[in-house]
Amino acid sequence: MSEKSNEKITSREVDFAQWYTDVCKAADLVDYSSVKGSMIIRPYGYAIWEHIVSVLDKMFKETGHVNVQMPMFIPESLFNIEKEHVEGFAPEVAWVTRGGKEELEEKMIVRPTSEVLFCEHFKKIIKSYRDLPILYNQWCTIVRWEKETRPFLRSREILWQEGHTMHATKEEAMEETLRMLECYRKLQEDFLALPVITGKKTEKEKFAGAEASYTVEAMMWNGVALQNGTSHYFGDGFAKAFHIQFLNKNNELETPYQTSWGVTTRMIGSLIMVHGDDRGLVLPPKIAPTKVAIIPIGDVEDVLTSMTDCLAAREISFMVDCSDKSPGYKFAEAEVKGYPIRLEIGKRDLEQGEVTIVRRDTLEKIKVAKDEAVDKIEGLLETIQKDMLEKARVRRDSMIYEAKDYPEFLKIAKEKTGFIKSKWCGEGTCEDKIKEDTTYKSRCIIDECHDGKCVCCGKDAKYDIYWGKQY
Amino acid sequence: MSEKSNEKITSREVDFAQWYTDVCKAADLVDYSSVKGSMIIRPYGYAIWEHIVSVLDKMFKETGHVNVQMPMFIPESLFNIEKEHVEGFAPEVAWVTRGGKEELEEKMIVRPTSEVLFCEHFKKIIKSYRDLPILYNQWCTIVRWEKETRPFLRSREILWQEGHTMHATKEEAMEETLRMLECYRKLQEDFLALPVITGKKTEKEKFAGAEASYTVEAMMWNGVALQNGTSHYFGDGFAKAFHIQFLNKNNELETPYQTSWGVTTRMIGSLIMVHGDDRGLVLPPKIAPTKVAIIPIGDVEDVLTSMTDCLAAREISFMVDCSDKSPGYKFAEAEVKGYPIRLEIGKRDLEQGEVTIVRRDTLEKIKVAKDEAVDKIEGLLETIQKDMLEKARVRRDSMIYEAKDYPEFLKIAKEKTGFIKSKWCGEGTCEDKIKEDTTYKSRCIIDECHDGKCVCCGKDAKYDIYWGKQY
Repeated sequence: MSEKSNEKITSREVDFAQWYTDVCKAADLVDYSSVKGSMIIRPYGYAIWEHIVSVLDKMFKETGHVNVQMPMFIPESLFNIEKEHVEGFAPEVAWVTRGGKEELEEKMIVRPTSEVLFCEHFKKIIKSYRDLPILYNQWCTIVRWEKETRPFLRSREILWQEGHTMHATKEEAMEETLRMLECYRKLQEDFLALPVITGKKTEKEKFAGAEASYTVEAMMWNGVALQNGTSHYFGDGFAKAFHIQFLNKNNELETPYQTSWGVTTRMIGSLIMVHGDDRGLVLPPKIAPTKVAIIPIGDVEDVLTSMTDCLAAREISFMVDCSDKSPGYKFAEAEVKGYPIRLEIGKRDLEQGEVTIVRRDTLEKIKVAKDEAVDKIEGLLETIQKDMLEKARVRRDSMIYEAKDYPEFLKIAKEKTGFIKSKWCGEGTCEDKIKEDTTYKSRCIIDECHDGKCVCCGKDAKYDIYWGKQY
Repeated sequence: MSEKSNEKITSREVDFAQWYTDVCKAADLVDYSSVKGSMIIRPYGYAIWEHIVSVLDKMFKETGHVNVQMPMFIPESLFNIEKEHVEGFAPEVAWVTRGGKEELEEKMIVRPTSEVLFCEHFKKIIKSYRDLPILYNQWCTIVRWEKETRPFLRSREILWQEGHTMHATKEEAMEETLRMLECYRKLQEDFLALPVITGKKTEKEKFAGAEASYTVEAMMWNGVALQNGTSHYFGDGFAKAFHIQFLNKNNELETPYQTSWGVTTRMIGSLIMVHGDDRGLVLPPKIAPTKVAIIPIGDVEDVLTSMTDCLAAREISFMVDCSDKSPGYKFAEAEVKGYPIRLEIGKRDLEQGEVTIVRRDTLEKIKVAKDEAVDKIEGLLETIQKDMLEKARVRRDSMIYEAKDYPEFLKIAKEKTGFIKSKWCGEGTCEDKIKEDTTYKSRCIIDECHDGKCVCCGKDAKYDIYWGKQY
């Protein structure tokens, strides 16, 4: 394999960061432009996003959510209404100050998130308990003025969805928060084959303006953590700041309870960094835009046609590489792109009545009778999906460490990159100390606990928590 | 019908503009916010857009196009590369001048359209004839700093799609331009039931930077024209300005030819203004998010369940209004929302073994045996789709006038609002004079002609052309 496409990819053992960038470029996922800090999502990258969107949008609709479209701008005065929120986001927003030839009377920001826009609207449309719950979602891009950017992980402009809901009771809002967290877990485990840990963010790490933030945490191949989605319980904080009230069944005014939740194209970063290898991308079948790459070798027109007809009839997406490049080049290209299965239809194999199937995840080559090929492919797609999740889970679990006391914590943090599980007192001072001593940050609280001592200060522990290095 | 929902709608005979705004609000399509000139697209309005997107996106993919995502910002220097383009758009762009706490070194505009971003990218990815054609599309929002805005018709932020393609030859680029124009015609006639006229824009009215612009022109109920989509042939103008070249089969450098094309949520404005009536929206079945509104009257649980099961099995979308409002209120509500069919399941009808079906387009009431109701509905949805197009076509054609000479033109323009067909010399001076004298603007050239005289100056005519008042 000394093919052109592969040459561009640095080994992930040698330089993981460079490997990541190389894969993003070599698989034609993204490109750069003169717009600093933003990325172009190229057709292959965007097709992955479209698949994620279609899966998630269906889940949202099945749970009663509807889509809306809010303006992308937020007037300064509207942005300023919720104090914690504005302090959290102000340092990283883009400002529109001129429209046409005129300076604006009131400056506007490009939305970094849309809570305030939704709240302003909710105030107008919520009058009675009959109007609740409101279950809204928006697919859009947001802008955060990041200094350092990396494709899919951190970008000035981000494609995402943001759910915004309003409920008559605390309990219902909390249920919704956890329902959407579960929806994200399901998307990531069942479709993206990403094993994830769900839990609660600490006070320090929660969303600006939220009462509680929940998170979906994935571990990359190199042990570094990536936050792959968040779901926030707002209580009635925003609702009070925006004077949103409804008449309950007894005709009394009450304040509703709110949630918001979002995932971004960052999940594509996780797909790359959990499943990819030195040959490029490895996509789980359920989210791969193209499941089978067919490479005809020699004149095999008849068999090719019957194969593609059969794949099409079973709605298995495929591409046929008929370009004038060498088979070796085409194999490498199919590997870079991470198509789950490569089907080689060669004259020589056909003399034995066979074709060759290659699994992208294991690189295993399987010779199979041509009449059984499509059955085999259909079965393998399911196997690959399962195996990829399992393989990722085994690797992740092998990099989860448990620390009983601080010396042990320091030793693991020094020697390993991964998640460290420990008990924690719940105090920000310990969280800060751990971060300063080790660069490990809290990932998520997975449970309350009523025994054991904080790994840092040794006082009574309140929580079981994961720590990790983060992107 | 003195129901609440209807009370809010001004008669379209009395004040068409107010009627339009009333329908937009009463049908819950849009709302306003403190973001001046932008609109909130509410769930029902957005669901219509989602249906349009799904139809169009399928058409794009079937014709070989792929989706991409470009940044929403354009640095000033990039924007300035194509001279005509920048002159056309500069007066109406929004400027981002600050990011976080810093003034930007180079100001950026929020994209009013993305030609320059695509060109910069094309320059990087086009090397050889093998890379062509490039058939890209983007779904996104754009910003144009309009002073006067109206929901769906003119807004500071617009949801749209923009296609951008590159071709090895002029002929191929021109074919693409017309293919996509035809795609828009098909969408509008076959799905939105909007009869449209396609043709070429005059030099004055063409897109800033295009060699030729083609347009899809619809006529509203009141005779006013709406440009419902455009497809542009760029020649090699942008490609030259951006130094985009490719090696042809003879290994010589050539400049490729380019197109761009787009439609926006403005088509929803057309849907409202072509089909709507004093009771509200009337949606053609093929684009209606909900095709059937079911209103149970009394306890009809068993029949309701069998009906909804049957509709679901045939994939006919429906909603059931089980609220505690009166049947009359619910009827009016279903009319405002423009559901193509209303199905009333009433205890009294059921005693005769019947249910009542009401067509939204004609308001015709049809009693039908309950066991035949779903068959009837399925057939009616097709009939309604056809009838709506035909009805709109008849009305439009009744407002197309032909003018042989200028006195006749002036008389029609004074007395009527509609399209005026005439011969034209092709000179901008006549175009300007007609606009000044009558407020009629050129809509589109439908053909060259080799006989007859210009309706304005009396010199030899070059074109058959439509004129109209425009939104």
